[in-house]
Amino acid sequence: MKNRVITISREFGSGGRTIGKRVAAELGLSCYDNELLQKIAEESGFQENYIKEAGEYAPGGFLSNAFSHRGANLNNADYLWRIQYKVISELAEKGPCVIVGRCADYILRDKADCLQIFIHADIKFRAERIVKEYGEREESPEQRLRDKDKRRAAYHRFYTDMKWGHAQNYDITLNSGTLGLDKCVEIILSLY
Amino acid sequence: MKNRVITISREFGSGGRTIGKRVAAELGLSCYDNELLQKIAEESGFQENYIKEAGEYAPGGFLSNAFSHRGANLNNADYLWRIQYKVISELAEKGPCVIVGRCADYILRDKADCLQIFIHADIKFRAERIVKEYGEREESPEQRLRDKDKRRAAYHRFYTDMKWGHAQNYDITLNSGTLGLDKCVEIILSLY
Repeated sequence: MKNRVITISREFGSGGRTIGKRVAAELGLSCYDNELLQKIAEESGFQENYIKEAGEYAPGGFLSNAFSHRGANLNNADYLWRIQYKVISELAEKGPCVIVGRCADYILRDKADCLQIFIHADIKFRAERIVKEYGEREESPEQRLRDKDKRRAAYHRFYTDMKWGHAQNYDITLNSGTLGLDKCVEIILSLY
Repeated sequence: MKNRVITISREFGSGGRTIGKRVAAELGLSCYDNELLQKIAEESGFQENYIKEAGEYAPGGFLSNAFSHRGANLNNADYLWRIQYKVISELAEKGPCVIVGRCADYILRDKADCLQIFIHADIKFRAERIVKEYGEREESPEQRLRDKDKRRAAYHRFYTDMKWGHAQNYDITLNSGTLGLDKCVEIILSLY
C-alpha cells in the first residue's frame, strides 16, 4: 500500500505554503518545506540559501553553471536535482505527509498515492501578500512575482516535462485569492 | 449587485455537463447547455447541429468559411460568436444560473459575479465515459477526444485570448476522474 502524500505546487505569494502547513497540522502530518531544504543541504553539502536559489534555476542559468560539482560529471543544478529526488522519495516512503514545492508531484507520481494540488492567485493578491510576509525590496513586488513565476515554470518544465499550472497535471487547482485560504484548507481536508 | 453565475468549462467526456446539471438542480438554478444551443439557434436562424459543430471551430476552419453570413461582413463563426455573446449576457442578467461551455467564463467576466470552474480527467476515464454515454463510433474514443480537445482549445484561444485549461483562468479546476463526479458536485456546492 502506497503512502498518501499531499503535494502542493504554488505560485509565489499565493499562500500555498501556509495552506500546506495548516492542512498538515489539521491532519497531524509532517509538512516538508524548509525541512526539505535542510535535508537537501545535509545530503549535498551546499548551503540552504544556495539550494533555495539554485532550486529555482533551470540548468543553463547563471548559478547552475557557475562551477561543476566536484568529481561527478554533473552541474550543480543536476546534482541537486538528484539529491532532491532521493530525499523526497525517502520522505514519501516513511509515511503520509504534505510536501510543498520542489516538483514532489512529479517525483512521487509512481511512488506514492498523491493528492496533487496547485495553488495560485492573481498578481494583485500575491503582491500584497509578499510585501506583508517578506517586506519591501528594491524591485517592485510585481517584478519579483513575474521573475519567480518564470523561474519556477522553467525549472519545472526542464526536470518534469510537465507544464506548471496546467489544470490537467493536478487533481485540483485552487485560486486562493478568490476562494480565500480558509476555504482552500477546508477543501483539501475534505479530499484527504 | 451582479448575479452569481457558475460557469463550467470542461474537457469532452469529463462529466462537466453532468456536474453542472446536478449542481444547478441542487441549488434550484437553471442550467444552460443544450438550452443555450436552442436560444442561439432561434436568434441566428441556424440549425442546432450546425451551431454545435461550428461553435467548436475557430475561424479559418472548414465550416466557418464554407459561406459568409448574408449581408453582414462576417463569416459564420464570427456571426455565431456575436449571437452567443448576446444570448449568454442576457441569461446572466436574468438571474443566477449555471452555464456549461461556450466561453461563458470569458463573456461574463465583467458582467456577472462568476464562479469559474474547469473540469478535466485523463484520457482513459473520458474514453470509457464517452463510449458509455454516446456509443461507439468509427473513430476510436481516444481519437475523438484528442480531436474535440484540440478544437475546443483553439476556439477558446481565438475568441478569448485565454488559455483553455490553464489553472490561472479559473477559481477552481477539478479532476473528475480522480476525485469522482459526486465529490466535484459537493465541492462546487460548498463554494456557491
